[in-house]
Amino acid sequence: MGERMALADGFIAVDWGTTNRRAYRIDRSGSCAQEFEDDRGIMSVPEGGFPDAVRAIRERLGDHPLLLAGMIGSNRGWVEAPYVPCPAGTEELARALVWPGEREAIIPGVSYVGQGRADVMRGEEVQLLGGAATGLIGADAFVCHPGTHNKWTLLRHGKIQAFGTVMTGELFSLLKEHSILSDLLQGPVEPNEAFKRGVRVAMERGMLPAQLFGVRASVLLDQASKEDAPSYTSGLLIGTDVRIGLTWPLSARIAVMGRPELTRLYAAAIVEAGREPIELDGERCFLAGIQKIAEMI
Amino acid sequence: MGERMALADGFIAVDWGTTNRRAYRIDRSGSCAQEFEDDRGIMSVPEGGFPDAVRAIRERLGDHPLLLAGMIGSNRGWVEAPYVPCPAGTEELARALVWPGEREAIIPGVSYVGQGRADVMRGEEVQLLGGAATGLIGADAFVCHPGTHNKWTLLRHGKIQAFGTVMTGELFSLLKEHSILSDLLQGPVEPNEAFKRGVRVAMERGMLPAQLFGVRASVLLDQASKEDAPSYTSGLLIGTDVRIGLTWPLSARIAVMGRPELTRLYAAAIVEAGREPIELDGERCFLAGIQKIAEMI
Repeated sequence: MGERMALADGFIAVDWGTTNRRAYRIDRSGSCAQEFEDDRGIMSVPEGGFPDAVRAIRERLGDHPLLLAGMIGSNRGWVEAPYVPCPAGTEELARALVWPGEREAIIPGVSYVGQGRADVMRGEEVQLLGGAATGLIGADAFVCHPGTHNKWTLLRHGKIQAFGTVMTGELFSLLKEHSILSDLLQGPVEPNEAFKRGVRVAMERGMLPAQLFGVRASVLLDQASKEDAPSYTSGLLIGTDVRIGLTWPLSARIAVMGRPELTRLYAAAIVEAGREPIELDGERCFLAGIQKIAEMI
Repeated sequence: MGERMALADGFIAVDWGTTNRRAYRIDRSGSCAQEFEDDRGIMSVPEGGFPDAVRAIRERLGDHPLLLAGMIGSNRGWVEAPYVPCPAGTEELARALVWPGEREAIIPGVSYVGQGRADVMRGEEVQLLGGAATGLIGADAFVCHPGTHNKWTLLRHGKIQAFGTVMTGELFSLLKEHSILSDLLQGPVEPNEAFKRGVRVAMERGMLPAQLFGVRASVLLDQASKEDAPSYTSGLLIGTDVRIGLTWPLSARIAVMGRPELTRLYAAAIVEAGREPIELDGERCFLAGIQKIAEMI
């Protein structure tokens, strides 16, 4: 594919999600020379609108080749990039790039089928493999990647070996926006004592749908303060998530990768579970991963 | 309170919920002579509008005393009727009636605080105690009461001894209306093989927030049919609910009380869990319970 485009002279990397996107101009030296973030996720692009959206990115960051990752490769994106099955490393992803044009390539997501279940990821794979490629995490590692859908991922020999998704972020949003708990969940979430109590309750017993109603009942009966409800509820959800993640047989250290406001909550929950978290910035891992893939084109 | 109103000559019983209500005219013989159901739940009544709403009920069912149950006694209802703590039987409820007027009484809900948790019910208590009072279930029984919020209740000597709420119905609604699974969940739910598979998966492992994302991933990867998604997802949620309910140490037989379209799903899940369900019509139990309380006024 080397004849299609050469990225050695620099390129534009885009992490293009459902509701947001981040674009980076990577120069010859591999440094990020310019970047922007906005809310033009794939759901805001009208049908047939991706060529124009890509043109607009080049107007801001220069006329460079584009390497795209995330939901842009889903069936609601520009061109669908079929999932690469586990085990998947940067080489497998680079071989399966999908080319909407001569100078635009989409990195596929990764799928897992096994142990009686199926799972998919799109976007996290670049961060995960970037972390491994640069040595930020080891080639054999266990990574927690919080977001709308948290991914617990096992890396073996620098490849994504298996992973499992937990709908934690989305469940919290649903409860906050639309549920009977809505008025209790509008305040800030902090990794405070209420959060840790929620984590412990969730770790002890896998009873999330019962524990959630308890948030409301406890406030009604003056057994808990209303102010604690957002952090406690977040602790219940993240504690359940960590309890699920820790059913995998693994070493004590867990890398937690993603946006710092989320990784600090998961790190606190993992400490509460008696394990050792290492927080990593997801953006830095993304840039490392996408450059690694760019080198293979 | 006997001087306030005499219900022996007949009365109107209202099960007044958040979004719906059912009203029944009970004649001297204890039979239901007339009834109606509509969507005038408490949330549809404007502030200060309950006297008018009650007048409208009397215009339809006659100028009789009213005995009201359900969310009408909540802090969003007509007049708040404070929760009666467990253990609570019909006598405890009758003693704690709240009287917005001389000829209108509100039955309070029931609260539970113990074992490190707190819980509340409003409306189900009349059905539960009605089932026990008439012998439809024994004075010592374990009852599953599905709805927006399922209640697992332990009856001892004809009183509500303890109970626990699981947010199953509301979670299914949130997922169906607002989540990433929304487009997969629009079809009918049946207690079919897909439902039973969901129940078994949920009974085996308490990993609901992970199993829910699996619904989507399995369809994307052709590991499951889209048509099965509503029943399978309902099975996951109800299976989790039954797994939680069965952590209580109880006899093999479980009464399942409520609307028949829900009790049949829970009955199927309870069979799948190796237990014996007995389905009871919630409306019949409500009428038995509210008449029992009326006799005590």
